[in-house]
Amino acid sequence: MFDQKMLEIGYSQSTIRDLYTYGLARKKEIGEDKVFDFSIGNPSIPAPKIVNDTLVKLLTEEDSVKIHGYTVSPGNKEVRDVIASYLNKTFHATTKGDFIFLTCGAAASLAIVTKAFVKPGEEVITFAPHFPEYRTYTEAVGGVLVNVNPDKDFFPDFVDLEKKITSKTRLVIYDSPNNPTGAFYTEEVIKRMASVLSKKEKEYDHPIYLVSDEPYRELLYKGEEYPFVTNYYDNSIVCYSFSKSLSLPGERIGYILVNPNANDVNDVYAVICGAASMLGYICAPALFQHMVPYVLGHTSNLEEYKKNKETLVTALKEIGFEVVNPTGAFYLFMKALEADAEKFSEVAKQFELLLVPSDPFDYKGYVRIAYCVSYKQIVNSIPAFKKLHNYYKNR
Amino acid sequence: MFDQKMLEIGYSQSTIRDLYTYGLARKKEIGEDKVFDFSIGNPSIPAPKIVNDTLVKLLTEEDSVKIHGYTVSPGNKEVRDVIASYLNKTFHATTKGDFIFLTCGAAASLAIVTKAFVKPGEEVITFAPHFPEYRTYTEAVGGVLVNVNPDKDFFPDFVDLEKKITSKTRLVIYDSPNNPTGAFYTEEVIKRMASVLSKKEKEYDHPIYLVSDEPYRELLYKGEEYPFVTNYYDNSIVCYSFSKSLSLPGERIGYILVNPNANDVNDVYAVICGAASMLGYICAPALFQHMVPYVLGHTSNLEEYKKNKETLVTALKEIGFEVVNPTGAFYLFMKALEADAEKFSEVAKQFELLLVPSDPFDYKGYVRIAYCVSYKQIVNSIPAFKKLHNYYKNR
Repeated sequence: MFDQKMLEIGYSQSTIRDLYTYGLARKKEIGEDKVFDFSIGNPSIPAPKIVNDTLVKLLTEEDSVKIHGYTVSPGNKEVRDVIASYLNKTFHATTKGDFIFLTCGAAASLAIVTKAFVKPGEEVITFAPHFPEYRTYTEAVGGVLVNVNPDKDFFPDFVDLEKKITSKTRLVIYDSPNNPTGAFYTEEVIKRMASVLSKKEKEYDHPIYLVSDEPYRELLYKGEEYPFVTNYYDNSIVCYSFSKSLSLPGERIGYILVNPNANDVNDVYAVICGAASMLGYICAPALFQHMVPYVLGHTSNLEEYKKNKETLVTALKEIGFEVVNPTGAFYLFMKALEADAEKFSEVAKQFELLLVPSDPFDYKGYVRIAYCVSYKQIVNSIPAFKKLHNYYKNR
Repeated sequence: MFDQKMLEIGYSQSTIRDLYTYGLARKKEIGEDKVFDFSIGNPSIPAPKIVNDTLVKLLTEEDSVKIHGYTVSPGNKEVRDVIASYLNKTFHATTKGDFIFLTCGAAASLAIVTKAFVKPGEEVITFAPHFPEYRTYTEAVGGVLVNVNPDKDFFPDFVDLEKKITSKTRLVIYDSPNNPTGAFYTEEVIKRMASVLSKKEKEYDHPIYLVSDEPYRELLYKGEEYPFVTNYYDNSIVCYSFSKSLSLPGERIGYILVNPNANDVNDVYAVICGAASMLGYICAPALFQHMVPYVLGHTSNLEEYKKNKETLVTALKEIGFEVVNPTGAFYLFMKALEADAEKFSEVAKQFELLLVPSDPFDYKGYVRIAYCVSYKQIVNSIPAFKKLHNYYKNR
């Protein structure tokens, strides 16, 4: 009677959320500070002060009916225009508010874009290891997810990318900095990607949409310039969320942006609006829409993530672990000490370390460590990582 | 290349939103108070004070990381438990927090429930005239929407209901009070509906889920007791939104509730969780989740809607219009003065009256008037209604 796939997802929720739920229960059992939960990208660094200040200001000074009222489906037009100006100034881009659709965050954006462009049997390409939900949204519409292998530094293997694109390829999705590796795609990478896709668009004579999923766009630790995809490829779409940059993981506010230079841009935007309606997405939360113009360009204190990252990377390397040195986001990708990452993650639980096995990221033999936790947790967890390493050395 | 249906929805957005968008533009042209926009259920009565007070209190007194942090996908468990207790106390029900899933509002809830239970070719029954999006969500998953005719008072025709249920029927959806008629389904109506469905469940030997869509549950003007569906039918699901009762139409907070007595209730709940994941719904907006326990049982000032309703109904009847006397919600269903309600709605625009033709509600010859506007607009619009009536009398 029920769809088995849906039922399965419903029961397991996902390895990450299972671990997180386990962590919540375990903390109640043995105490909050005894469990080293690195499972979920739930920043423990507070939102910048301007977020709550703005919300309070809107709630106390503005007309309640306006602040909580409907906007048009794609979101308040002035807000969208302000976002476009901000992007144009920051990234020397040429975006337009007319082609922005405010959404209930990144998950919503990705689900909408996938629904909009992918029919049953059609293909979505992404780069392993990747955010697990790319698979969920692709399969939800009957599509097929195709993985491109990474090179040794966890950048796309372009030879493999070229091989994997077929006449059925509708979307190519990437996130940079990457979840789970923290790898940041330089301008060089984006240019090569655009060049492969342009060639293939000509070959197959139809658009292949390049979707840049950018929740971690601002989480860069070396002051790198972010290569904004619309500057490099016409048929490009940006999915953005304020959840990570502003430490608002539980809030639902983000946007989909269509490159104004996309072929048949009005149709592309309309099909996104249509898909959103069909999935029940109308009018992103109004209060948070109105907040956006005040907080653009702000981030939570990145120095704290940087300190976490450096302390943890140094400690793990000293202990003897092999880690991918991340340049962005707040994830560390660490090689498991046995081939089966799920087993390794189970063993880590014995030491109260909650590490996400890499399998749901379509990659074997690693764990993801979300280091967006308190510095105290970083420091206190190091002995547990030592015990974990010893366990494997001695068995 | 694009899905034509999706493109169409994307371009038109819906008659209601088109009218609303037209109204926004028209107001800019000729002045806010010159346009009598009755198109959209966007309350112009402010949220009860406790809403903004609670939000400000949470933002200023609570830990920002907690307030904006992830919850588990179905929502904060304590919040869900509080909702269950409130429902049990208010409606003598036996609901449980374990079977509540917090969502981004009513549209989300309906889209999720439809995705969860309806496969391509399967049927959803609803009662004409009905909320247009029932069709959108049904067709989005490849299902077929089947309309049951109303009786003369706009209650379900039970003979027709019985005829329309087939082996393919998965869901029966109703909203009470109804959008667009304002009709309130008494206990008697719910009991008869339950009785027909129970008979048919036995006949076909599988569950038929009765979905009560309840955004207007609290908007009753005669102090009627609300017959809570889980008390009358085991395989029942409630979709609730705080948008209308609390005047928060632009915010996205609501829930799906599964009757704990439903057959295989764990599977039913899991398939809803799975469908939500697939559609990109994870963790309803956190700040608003945390607000819920403080505002349960509160509503915006219903006396204002009541005054609007009475003034408008009296005036329209005096002018000579035929209206369905609404007992709840904030909609008035008025007979058009020509057979084609779309044409009638176009004519009404000449008098700056924005009235939604009944066609998108799968019903002919009426218009919907959303009277959740300022009392001033009600009073000022009356001469325009007179002119509209005269126009038809004299042509």
